[in-house]
Amino acid sequence: MIDFVRQMPAGDTHERSVCATCGFIDYQNPKIVVGSVVSHGGRILLCRRAIEPRQGFWTLPAGYLELGETAEEGARREALEEAEAAIAIDGLLAVFSLGRIGQIQLIFRASFEAAAEPHFAAGPESLEVALFEWDAIPRDRIAFPSVHWALSAWRDAEGRALGLPAGNPVETIVP
Amino acid sequence: MIDFVRQMPAGDTHERSVCATCGFIDYQNPKIVVGSVVSHGGRILLCRRAIEPRQGFWTLPAGYLELGETAEEGARREALEEAEAAIAIDGLLAVFSLGRIGQIQLIFRASFEAAAEPHFAAGPESLEVALFEWDAIPRDRIAFPSVHWALSAWRDAEGRALGLPAGNPVETIVP
Repeated sequence: MIDFVRQMPAGDTHERSVCATCGFIDYQNPKIVVGSVVSHGGRILLCRRAIEPRQGFWTLPAGYLELGETAEEGARREALEEAEAAIAIDGLLAVFSLGRIGQIQLIFRASFEAAAEPHFAAGPESLEVALFEWDAIPRDRIAFPSVHWALSAWRDAEGRALGLPAGNPVETIVP
Repeated sequence: MIDFVRQMPAGDTHERSVCATCGFIDYQNPKIVVGSVVSHGGRILLCRRAIEPRQGFWTLPAGYLELGETAEEGARREALEEAEAAIAIDGLLAVFSLGRIGQIQLIFRASFEAAAEPHFAAGPESLEVALFEWDAIPRDRIAFPSVHWALSAWRDAEGRALGLPAGNPVETIVP
């Protein structure tokens, strides 16, 4: 019988859900969302969500990081999946901590890999994908608060170099 | 009966462990480790591990991010727990992606909050805690490869401003 109770395991510093029958500890950890603010000539790439939650609202290309990929690889994959956009990352724009929903979001600043001929289109999770001038962003149709925060962070950082934190030695990324 | 098979759920892009009996999808996501390279007058704070894995080896104050805290709060908590050190974070030094063990590590650069009188001591998970001159770091007694990477990143960034990515609006951090 599974019967979870809140208790602090020996040696721990936080209460966990522990099965009163077998002692299994159900650790709940934050999940990692990776995404990017992709811009081109001052315009910003947004995707209109084809799926719930917030279907029909606009968001950045972003999603859960998968096992075996780097944060940058995950952000590039999400841009491909949701916007069919091959992107080049130039820095880490924001780290958002969403305690209530158990997420850490790593949001990169990016441009199109083929800057001369940027390609984008709606992937299966998007109804449409478009580049918006800053003043034309549909602010009342944005899917999540963190999209507003990321857009503000992008605007604040405009024209400034971002720190790109050090990453792994390349050969060490082993799925 | 629980009988997991690898298959790609409808609408997904990756294979998952799916229970053949009930359809439960066991998503495996990377976990987030937060830590810091804390320095004082060019010396670096290391903790000798009191626990497995790698008991007796030296590491940075670091550990799993808990639900409801920001990455910076997590790094500060770990420094308090493992080294009884109150630290001040000045930038994000590195983001390491450890696919094989399913971790993303966010490593900050930090100093002691009370720089005039730095305090540190072994917390329950440390055998001892010490400040090491760069050349005196016990390189053959380091617990994990990512500690070497973080130390190299710290050295590479010495004297340089780090980008501190934007964070949440303060009032939005809701556990």
